Amino acid sequence: MKRDYHISFIGAGNLATNLAKAFYNKGFVIDQIFSKTTESAQSLAGEVEALSTTNLEDVILTSDLYIIALKDDVLPQLLSRIIANKENALFVHTAGSVPMNIFEGHSNRYGVFYPMQTFTKERVVDFSTIPLFIEANNPSDKKTLMDIASIISSKVYEANSEQRKKLHLAAVFSCNFVNHLYALSAEILEEYGLPFDSMLSLIDETTQKIHHLHPKDAQTGPAVRNDQDVMNRHLSMLAPHPDVQEVYRLLSKNIVKHKANK
Amino acid sequence: MKRDYHISFIGAGNLATNLAKAFYNKGFVIDQIFSKTTESAQSLAGEVEALSTTNLEDVILTSDLYIIALKDDVLPQLLSRIIANKENALFVHTAGSVPMNIFEGHSNRYGVFYPMQTFTKERVVDFSTIPLFIEANNPSDKKTLMDIASIISSKVYEANSEQRKKLHLAAVFSCNFVNHLYALSAEILEEYGLPFDSMLSLIDETTQKIHHLHPKDAQTGPAVRNDQDVMNRHLSMLAPHPDVQEVYRLLSKNIVKHKANK
Repeated sequence: MKRDYHISFIGAGNLATNLAKAFYNKGFVIDQIFSKTTESAQSLAGEVEALSTTNLEDVILTSDLYIIALKDDVLPQLLSRIIANKENALFVHTAGSVPMNIFEGHSNRYGVFYPMQTFTKERVVDFSTIPLFIEANNPSDKKTLMDIASIISSKVYEANSEQRKKLHLAAVFSCNFVNHLYALSAEILEEYGLPFDSMLSLIDETTQKIHHLHPKDAQTGPAVRNDQDVMNRHLSMLAPHPDVQEVYRLLSKNIVKHKANK
Repeated sequence: MKRDYHISFIGAGNLATNLAKAFYNKGFVIDQIFSKTTESAQSLAGEVEALSTTNLEDVILTSDLYIIALKDDVLPQLLSRIIANKENALFVHTAGSVPMNIFEGHSNRYGVFYPMQTFTKERVVDFSTIPLFIEANNPSDKKTLMDIASIISSKVYEANSEQRKKLHLAAVFSCNFVNHLYALSAEILEEYGLPFDSMLSLIDETTQKIHHLHPKDAQTGPAVRNDQDVMNRHLSMLAPHPDVQEVYRLLSKNIVKHKANK
């Protein structure tokens, strides 16, 4: 079933790819995909039966909604070209840490559609449980955005730009930094021919635990026990990798300090 | 069904509690629980129908296996008292980062029984999927330890002291440090009245992802994109919390550096 609601995407990266597929799979019409690289534009366009373009000036004028999913730092410089000739269309960006008022003076109808999730092109995520945080500059478009968000996810919330900024910052700790620790863990193991898979059961339990306990109450390990012997042995094992050693030292110090303040 | 194999525990902390219950639930006889605090000793002993003591010299002599689960840094100083009069019994410790040869000169039969997992007293974990790493100073006891380990877990491996040290170090990154990042994330949200629960879907996906992708390939976020605008905004949001800001700065720097080396 096709819905009579037309969406175009400005951007064809991880987020755009996942979001375009989620809308497409729910019957929305995806009009067009813009990307600066032909390959990205065409590849995603092919998957969601859309047109593609690498020229911002060729983005069609008739979509109901334009979803901008670009790197945060290129967004401001491209915004006037993106919106040109479409001042009365509805635009949203998808960036956690960019305030909604970036649209002011460019567009008349705008908002934010922030899916708090980690996206990788190769991995299709189930959108139905992804929290979507919505903001808009007028009640009618806010209602529209909440409605279409509710079609792809059961977790739709309003959040203003201040709240969204904090959510994004917290997400960097809970997701991006966490993943980097997994990468460091994998490095340590691989250096000694041990498989990273051996960590998965531990990692799963660490994650499950905080569904039931506050992370402060779930803390274990040498630092929270202030077990200096173990920490010193670990630091000397890391001596050949001063940058990883520095991460170990700082996080342990921080855990000890937080315990003391608790 | 009771198995004719008797185990005593030296220690009644998170790990001892979970391990004693796992053996008890599989029908092993738990003879006795030692803890320096009466309450801990009695509480666990009550749950596994064992005797309790707070006096090392009162630990019974007739158990088949003594499992030592104490803080790593008290283990060396207590070892001769723990083993006294039981030189021919089988002793294991459970510490990732303590080599097996700590037993040398104290006991004749010894080994290591290292469950790589995060344990909290309040949370009973399913041992059947926990990797258990086994070492022993003689083939017959190694076989015994592998056999009884296989009764409580389907993931039993041999690992020598060197390998176990690396596993433990990697686990500190994958579990203890990760949990601390969850705690920092919760702090950031709570300061602004946002619930930590809003992170759970993101956290679950971050975990799921590394079952399928190497963590290096799963990295997302401002640092791996080298998005200086976002990182600078985050750092200024964290200005009131210099210690958290320091964690943000170091991990971001480390992610940028690892990307460059990839």
